[in-house]
Order: sequence, then structure tokens, then C-alpha cells
Amino acid sequence: MYPFEDGQTFPKNHWYIAACSHEVGRALFERTILEERLVFYRKEDGTPVALDGICPHRNLPMVQGELEGDAVRCRYHGFRFDTDGRCTDIPSQPTVPSSFTTRAYPVLERWQWIWVWMGDPAKADPALLPDMAFCGLGAPGWRADSNGVMHLKARFSLLIDNLMDLSHIAFLHVQSIGKLERATVAAEMTEENGRVHVVRCTPNQPAEGFHRFLHPNCNGPVDLTMRSDFLGPGLINAGGPYSVMNGTGEPVGRLNFVHGFTPETLQTTHYFPAVARDFRLDDEGLSQALLGQERKVLAEDVPALEHVELSVQRLGNTRRELSVMADAGAMRVRRRLIEMMKAEAQ
Amino acid sequence: MYPFEDGQTFPKNHWYIAACSHEVGRALFERTILEERLVFYRKEDGTPVALDGICPHRNLPMVQGELEGDAVRCRYHGFRFDTDGRCTDIPSQPTVPSSFTTRAYPVLERWQWIWVWMGDPAKADPALLPDMAFCGLGAPGWRADSNGVMHLKARFSLLIDNLMDLSHIAFLHVQSIGKLERATVAAEMTEENGRVHVVRCTPNQPAEGFHRFLHPNCNGPVDLTMRSDFLGPGLINAGGPYSVMNGTGEPVGRLNFVHGFTPETLQTTHYFPAVARDFRLDDEGLSQALLGQERKVLAEDVPALEHVELSVQRLGNTRRELSVMADAGAMRVRRRLIEMMKAEAQ
Amino acid sequence: MYPFEDGQTFPKNHWYIAACSHEVGRALFERTILEERLVFYRKEDGTPVALDGICPHRNLPMVQGELEGDAVRCRYHGFRFDTDGRCTDIPSQPTVPSSFTTRAYPVLERWQWIWVWMGDPAKADPALLPDMAFCGLGAPGWRADSNGVMHLKARFSLLIDNLMDLSHIAFLHVQSIGKLERATVAAEMTEENGRVHVVRCTPNQPAEGFHRFLHPNCNGPVDLTMRSDFLGPGLINAGGPYSVMNGTGEPVGRLNFVHGFTPETLQTTHYFPAVARDFRLDDEGLSQALLGQERKVLAEDVPALEHVELSVQRLGNTRRELSVMADAGAMRVRRRLIEMMKAEAQ
Repeated sequence: MYPFEDGQTFPKNHWYIAACSHEVGRALFERTILEERLVFYRKEDGTPVALDGICPHRNLPMVQGELEGDAVRCRYHGFRFDTDGRCTDIPSQPTVPSSFTTRAYPVLERWQWIWVWMGDPAKADPALLPDMAFCGLGAPGWRADSNGVMHLKARFSLLIDNLMDLSHIAFLHVQSIGKLERATVAAEMTEENGRVHVVRCTPNQPAEGFHRFLHPNCNGPVDLTMRSDFLGPGLINAGGPYSVMNGTGEPVGRLNFVHGFTPETLQTTHYFPAVARDFRLDDEGLSQALLGQERKVLAEDVPALEHVELSVQRLGNTRRELSVMADAGAMRVRRRLIEMMKAEAQ
Repeated sequence: MYPFEDGQTFPKNHWYIAACSHEVGRALFERTILEERLVFYRKEDGTPVALDGICPHRNLPMVQGELEGDAVRCRYHGFRFDTDGRCTDIPSQPTVPSSFTTRAYPVLERWQWIWVWMGDPAKADPALLPDMAFCGLGAPGWRADSNGVMHLKARFSLLIDNLMDLSHIAFLHVQSIGKLERATVAAEMTEENGRVHVVRCTPNQPAEGFHRFLHPNCNGPVDLTMRSDFLGPGLINAGGPYSVMNGTGEPVGRLNFVHGFTPETLQTTHYFPAVARDFRLDDEGLSQALLGQERKVLAEDVPALEHVELSVQRLGNTRRELSVMADAGAMRVRRRLIEMMKAEAQ
Repeated sequence: MYPFEDGQTFPKNHWYIAACSHEVGRALFERTILEERLVFYRKEDGTPVALDGICPHRNLPMVQGELEGDAVRCRYHGFRFDTDGRCTDIPSQPTVPSSFTTRAYPVLERWQWIWVWMGDPAKADPALLPDMAFCGLGAPGWRADSNGVMHLKARFSLLIDNLMDLSHIAFLHVQSIGKLERATVAAEMTEENGRVHVVRCTPNQPAEGFHRFLHPNCNGPVDLTMRSDFLGPGLINAGGPYSVMNGTGEPVGRLNFVHGFTPETLQTTHYFPAVARDFRLDDEGLSQALLGQERKVLAEDVPALEHVELSVQRLGNTRRELSVMADAGAMRVRRRLIEMMKAEAQ
């Protein structure tokens, strides 16, 4: 499927963000992830659980059932399943065959997100979680705020294209961010350990507007840096500007707009934006201002990506796609994703 | 198509309920049945007629036309068709070629329902009507009330699964019927003459609640019986409880919830519920109470089955389905339906 | 696709009406034509332009962009395209590869319509425009009024069927036009230079109703003529009645209901109706009355054709279609369209 090869959809052997922590509790919660319906809840001790969202007996969604302690009971014929997917009660008969199970998915809770592993459970190693600390999530000396969850009616790869080429800021975000000439300077791409970084740096600029809002006591000049960091199929860091004060060479503060995202279906995406910074950590008003600014920017991205989705649904892979230098980062990520999917298909 | 084999949809050489009698009159009435659009009306003598709902000339729905005596005239170019499907007038030319016909479907009116035969008309034998008297419809000593027609956005086989395994009552209907422990006792399945019966009996129980509402003068104890009777691809009887008074052995009254149903499309169903009883025949208030109770129960079944339909649309036949002892009746019916479809395909 | 052969959709090497002149100006305007999304605008000198509606870089609809002089700039990454489709600016890099182009479509403005050529641009000869003067559009001695644009949720071929067999008037338009017995007299079909004409003539009739409204001073008798003229895959003239006064043999005035139409998608059509006459040219009230009458008639055709569309979507090419003598003109046009599509496929 565009922009991948025919039959390729998404890599599965990765941790994806399933939900914000606050979304999952002692009430059953359903979400579709990578085309599969899952039901989520917390055990009495608070640990999150993810099971197949459809009862394997006669297909009623489990979300309509009820919790009984750590187990969940289907509302249709009353079958009860444990957190590991084992059926522990079939009311219409005295015993439960051991083959009677539903699928349980590995889950982890890190920072303010619940992560799920949709691929081979044997490979669900917590060490494979993408590097949240790189963005400042849960990292010492940083403050990070979640912007909740949004729904994007576009395939996840379009969001990756968007985030890995920030040259769109000067046009799509001319209302929310303004005419950033620097967005169009040439970018450098590097890759290491499966991460792809695109960095645009414009040194020795006067401090203006948003920079002075962030750092009122810094008069500049500043090195303006914009960066996109692909950290995994569902986590991209976009940020970095206003980071270094020229003259003294001392950093005055880093600001990241963090983009967690998870394919819902082939053509829709759950979007988990956040903001992280390493300065003015206790300033709650600044947090609210940055979250508001991020929502304003996303309110331009989301409808544009949904329009692009409709275009590519119609055009599919039949059309010659023209790419330019600024697409280098996105194209590199695309190739990496294709490699991941090929490896899984073997 | 789930739960049948690939390419199998519904058996055609059977009588299906097309409409309640009161729905069809001297105004044209359209209904889709087994994926075909039909137009219904009554002749001047009251006999019901069913014709192809789409004009064979240029495809306007016939329902937009007009009756002329016993014939119907299309609104597009004025072609007129007789009750046997013969075209009897083409206004733009003096004569009508004898090959110019539309399809007429065999119909019968029995009890308060109009039945239609969608398969080979040569096989449309009234003797093949399912045994309505078994449920108490139009049977001496019984009173039966129609609950009209409902629309179910689920394939008919899911309704059969539902009705042939009443162990779901204790869970899905916990609000409307309550915790019937007896619903989960083991059931006996029998089959004769193409009918499949599932019976659960719990003898010698105290008379309570609903039983005392039905039979105020019966103090029990009673034999509680729940039964599902598959009488044909579109008629299932579910009922039977509260039927025998212990001690004297005299029956105190039988009550049936009758479920007529007809595939509309591959994934939707027309649902014709009714209630029949052989006691308190003149008690109009009891009729209304029972019809209301049936609607309350169906208001739990319908959304659940529509959720299941969405699940199976997504999952198709790709998923391993787990079945248990209580599914024996439904599985037996499923096999019979598959045999019917195989026989028709030859 | 019905009513054509499998794989055949619409002929492409023809001029189709894209828009009314007043719809296109200095604001970007999007319309889908023959399944392709196009963006329209006028150059500063007023000449209309049509480009691919989707940016060839990352697929955002161009309609969201902005005009810069005669060029258009995409809102996503700021790529700018000239009226011939050449990319003239890629903001993120200093130069533009010459291969970087979008598709430009040949356009013409004639009468009150903008015409577009969707096929091979090398064949876009203005001489191939259908004969608008035949209908009285832009012809000396005639007045023509546009009825704007309507949207029809039916394939264009159903509109052709409708317009080439006016025997439907006596039935579908019994409310708006009345029982025209003459509509059902035999028709003569002729063909020359790719045009198909169907003419029904009833000579020497008394002047009544609509005729007297048009020509208050003409007492008749009159020759009543109804005609359908297929002038191209997107232009049919339907009219001609009330044209000749008997006795003197002097024409008292011709009136045409002109039907421009353009496939939007496989199953929807843009409809551009108009009215033309060669009498009472300065009578604005008569123009408004005729446009109102045309809208009244189309308000009967449009829902009927949309019902037929739903029928044929369901039935496809699987069903035996019965045709009669009155279909001769429509069937001839159908064959010509099939020939056009076959010629293009070679």
C-alpha cells in the first residue's frame, strides 16, 4: 500500500502507543490498533491488560462485558477470561477445555503512555521501546506534558512524511508559526542505530518572537535549529530550535514537540502529541501555552493530511511520485519501514 | 460467507416471510429479500402479488409506478405488467413482444404473514411452508399476536446462533429476564424431519416471578422448560417454560416466543417476532404485556447481534471459531443449511 | 461497465463542459471530471487554466494553495506551478529539475461554458467542439440562457438513455408537462457526421396550452415536433416542438432544451442545462419562465435517474436488458460511444 510496496501495511514487531495512561482504568476500554480490535483494562493492582477485543466464541465485542476481579466476562454467553487470555469459566458447561483461550497482548506502561506489542509476543522485549528519554519524556532535568490523543483519518506513513520534512512549516503553518525562512535552508541527514535525524541549522540569528517568549532574559543572537528525529515506527521528535546562545555557547533551553502515533487501520491513525522542555520546568502557564500552540499547529496538519489521504486512496501506487532533496529523511525512513516489513514477512 | 462455506449465502428453495399482512395493500410496497428487490401489492380481490422490483426495460424501481386494476405500470416509460409478470402495454409501440416479461414470485398468505418463494418457482409447494401450528400460529386453542417487523443489521445466521443457544439469556438478558440459573443447565438436542429441537428442563421448581404473573392461580411447583425449535431457515420457536404443573401433572399453559426472519441482504435481516399462548386467550392486556416483554428482550439482542455482525464482517472466515457443548443445536442447524445450499448448487 | 462493455467507462478524446464561466475566476476552483481531480482558475488576463488538482509532490489538493500572478503555489511545501504545468519554484532547494511538472489540461471558453479536454492533449483541436450553434447557443438570431450546474448521482449514460427516448415524458413528466399523447407516436432516427437525431412529428394539431403561452398570437394549427439530437458525448439537444405553423408554412419559433453533461465519476455526472429560442429574444420574463419550467422537469428526471443508477449498480451487466423500438436512438448512441472507447483503447 502506498507509499510502501503492494501488500505491505505496517511493521508489527514494535512497541506502539495504545493509550494515554488516564484512558485505561477499571472500566473496559476498546481501541483498534493495527487493524485489530483490543480491549484494555487495569488489574486490581493497577497493571494494564490488553486482550483480543472480540470474544473467540461468538464474536461479541468484549468491551460490552464486565470485569470480575482481574478477569473479564463476555456479555453474550458469560465466558470468563483471565489476564493471560485463558478461559476460566463457561457457564453452560462444567469444565473448560484447555484449548479455549483468547489472545493476550504484551503491554507496558512508560511515561504517561500504555504501549502494546502487536507482533510475535516472544519478541516483546521492553528493551525495544523507542528512546523516550531522547525527546525528554521521563528524562531527568526535563518536563514533558501530554496533549492527549487525537484521531487522524490518514495512514501513519503520511504523518511520517509530514514530520520528517519540516520545510512545510513555512507554508502549511504560515498562520500558526509564521514565515520561517530558515525552514527552507538545506538539511543534513544522519542515521545511526535505526534512528534517522534531519537537522537544519541557521547560526547567529537575532532573537525574536517565539524565542523571546520562551527565554525572556536571552537577547541573542541564537543558533536556530530545527530537527526531526525518527525514533521508531510510532515516535518522532520534532524540535530543537532556540537551543544555543551564541557568544557564550551556553544552551538556553531545548524544546521538543513529540509525536507519538499508532496505526489504527490501514488508513487511520491514533495521534499522541506531547511537548517536552528542559527549562522553566515549574512554569505551569508555559506548559499550557506550549500545548495550546501545538494544538494550533496540529489543527493545520490534521485536515491537510486527511486531504492527502483521500488523494492517495484514489491514486494508490499508480502515480509517479516526484520527490526532492527535502524528502531525503522521509524517504530514508520509508526504506527502513519497508525493510522491517520485509524482514517480518520472511 | 461466515458461518457457511465460501460462496454460500442462503438457501433459496424455501418459503420466507416477506411482510406482515397489513403492510401490503393497494399501494405499491417494496422490500429487498435475499438480495433481490421485489414490489408487492394486492389484487382487487385482495390476493397478494410479488413482482421483480426493478423494471426490466430501463431499471426504474416499480414501486414508483401505479396500479391499474390488477396490473402495475412503470413510471418511467409507462410499461404495464400483469400479475404473472407478462408485459401487456408498451405505450410507444402498438404491440408487445411475448418475450417481454418481468419476474413474478410465488406468494402465499398464512396467519398474519405474506410468504414468498425466492428459488425455483416450479418447486414452490405450499406443503413446504414451515409448521406454523407447531408454534401456535393459527392453531386451534391458541392465540398468537404479531410484534410487527423489525430491521436487523446482521446476517440471518447470527440470529439462528442466538436463538438456538438460549444459554445467553442469563447474561445478555440479565436486565430484561434476570438471572435464570436454569438457562445454563445442560440441553438435549433432537432432530426429526429437518427440525432441530434443543430442550432444557429443570423439574419441580417453585413458582416465582414471571410464572406467577402468567398463572396467578398456580402455586407450583412447576417443571421449567426452555426450548428452541428450528422449523425452517426463517422460523424458530423459542419458548416452552412454565408448561407443566407438578403434582397433578396437568399443563397450565404454554407460551412461545416465535421468531420469523428473512435475509434481506447478505448482512441484514427482516425480523418478524410474535408471541403465542394456549391460555387466557381473551386477555388483551396479557397480549400487550407479552409483546412488550418480547420487545424489551429483542432490544438487547438486536444491538448485540449488530455488534457481532461488524465483528464477523471484519474477521470473515479467517478466524478459528471456538465452540462449546451449548452450541450443538446451532451447529446442527448450520450443517443443515449448508447441506440445503449444496443441494441447490448442484 | 453497464451499459457498455466491461472495462469501458467514457470516451476521453472529446471536449467536455468543465464549468460555467462564472464558476471560475481568480479563486482556485476544484472539480472532478472523468474520475480526475482538476483545479481551475483564470490568469490575470482572464484566460481559464486547468491543472491536475493534486500536487505531484506529496498529494495535497492544489485548491488549498494560492495564486501568485498566473501561477499557483501548493499550500503543503510551497511548490509553484505555471499554467503549462511546469514547476517554477521549490522553496527547499535552489533549483527545479526540468522533469518536475504537473499535468495541464487544454481548456476553451465558448458560450457560457468552460470546456476541457481530458484525453491526449495532442488531439485537442477546437474544431472538435460539439456544434453548440445547432442548439442555438451563441448562434445569431437566438437567445440562450444557462440553468447553471446540477449534480446527478447517476452515470452519464443513463442521462443519454433518458434524453434520447422522450417517450418517457408522458409518464415521468405527467406532473410537469402533462399527458402528451404525441410523445408516444413512432419516431424517425437519422444519423450523419456522428450525430444521432430522433424526431417525432404530429402534423396539423390545434394550438393549445404551452404552445399558446409561447406564441400568444398564433392560433394554429401547428406541426408538433419533438426531437433529440445527440451532438457529442456531453451535449444533447431536446426540443423542437411548436416550430411550424401550418397553412402558411411559416415557422413561428423554435425552442430547445439543451443538456450539457460531463461524467464526474463512474457513477455521477455534472449536469449543465440550458434553454435556447429564436423568438421573443428580449423577453426576460419568458427566459425566467422557461428556465423555471426546465428545472421543474429536471426535478423529476434527476431522482428517477438516481434510482436507476442504484438499480444498475446492483444489477451490473448480469441482467438481460429488454429494449423496444423507442430505444433505437439511445441504442445507436450507445454503440457509437462503445466504438469511440474501442478506438481510444487501441
